[in-house]
Parts: sequence; C-alpha cells; structure tokens
Amino acid sequence: MASLPRPEAQNLYTMIRTLKWSDAEKAIARKAFERALQQDLEAIIRQAKKMAGRIEQPSDLWELERYLTDRRKEIDRQYDYRYSVLLNVFAGLIQKGRLREQDLQGLSEEKLRHIHQLAQASRPSEL
Amino acid sequence: MASLPRPEAQNLYTMIRTLKWSDAEKAIARKAFERALQQDLEAIIRQAKKMAGRIEQPSDLWELERYLTDRRKEIDRQYDYRYSVLLNVFAGLIQKGRLREQDLQGLSEEKLRHIHQLAQASRPSEL
Repeated sequence: MASLPRPEAQNLYTMIRTLKWSDAEKAIARKAFERALQQDLEAIIRQAKKMAGRIEQPSDLWELERYLTDRRKEIDRQYDYRYSVLLNVFAGLIQKGRLREQDLQGLSEEKLRHIHQLAQASRPSEL
Repeated sequence: MASLPRPEAQNLYTMIRTLKWSDAEKAIARKAFERALQQDLEAIIRQAKKMAGRIEQPSDLWELERYLTDRRKEIDRQYDYRYSVLLNVFAGLIQKGRLREQDLQGLSEEKLRHIHQLAQASRPSEL
C-alpha cells in the first residue's frame, strides 16, 4: 500500500502534519488560539443574551436552544488544538474573521505560507 | 395468551383507555390542558431569561442549552393530548402543581376519581 502513488494534496497534508513546532511557536499559537476562542465565545454570549431578551413565545425558546446547540458543536469542531491540524484550524479562523494573519507572526515562514494558502483554498467551501 | 390472568392494574388501565369523552368533557379537558401547558411554557421563558441574564462564562451558556433541551423533552413527553392517556397526564400535572383538581370540574365523577387516585399513586415515583 505504501508504494502506491499518492495525490499531491495527500503529500501536502502529510508534510503539514509532521512539521515541528518550537516552544516559541507553540506559545504564539496557543495565545492566538485562545484569543480567537474567547472572542467567539463572547460573541455567542452576547447573541444568546440578545435572543433571550427577545423571547416572547415558545418557538423563540427552541430557537435559542437550537442556536446554542449549533454553536457548541461548531466550537467543538473548529477549536481543535492538535499541532497536526492546527494550520487548518488557523486558516479556518482567518477565513471566519476570528484571526488575522498578523496575529500569527513569529511562526515559521513555511507555516505562515501554508496557513495563507489553506485560508485561500478553504474560501469557496465556506461560502 | 388472552386467557392468562391479568393483574388488576392492567384491567384498570384498559378500562381508563376505553372511557368515553363527551363534547363538554373534551372542552373542559382541552382548556385545562392548554392552560397548564401555557403556564409551564411561561415559567420556562422566565427562567431562560433569568439564566441568560446571568451568563458570564461559557459554562453558563451550555448550562442554559442543557436546561432548554431538558425542558423541551419534558414538555414533549408530558403534554400528550390523547384521550387514552389523558387521565394520567392530568394526574401528573396535578402532582407537579400545574393543575388543580377543581380545574377539571365537569368531567365525570369516574374520571375525576381515577385522576385523583392516579395522582396519589404517582406521588412516590415523582420524589
């Protein structure tokens, strides 16, 4: 099986998964990750309070429930702090506007290039 | 199988399921049912607004989500307007304090007696 030719994308992802992270890079990544997560959660809290304030009938209650369930699942899915997938996570957060590329300054040029390209590549599927 | 002796409770429930409901009784039942449901929903709305107002951190968000999910399931389970189970539904609502026996005045004496007895019988399992 290992001798079969692999598509280029497969090679890219395999390579990304095996990138080494220095302690300094880990600190930068952790800080950016936590800040984006915090911002996301604060936005959800604001929206939940707004929705709750407007509840007038039962359907509004279940709409709030659905909103919270969807956001919780989205947060669980999106905020995955494993170095093997972290470049994709950052690319997704940049796409979503939760993170700017400059928040990640200090990561290696190679990592920043991959993040930039992944963010560009993920754009169509986000629309 | 039909010749096997059945426990007394089985006979009771079979009999309750086959009780006839007059139009006047249906109107009384529907009104009491809807009023209890409305009160339950209003209490949930008040509590949801209170919980939302107190949200400070993410765990409070997911606590609100869980509260709403639990209440929705409880409402779905408890408010079952089928005449075959309605006496049990009313007994449960009386137990819960959502309904008083006098709200059901106008139902036949037999139905009121069953409701009263079911409400008493269900007490231990509610604790």
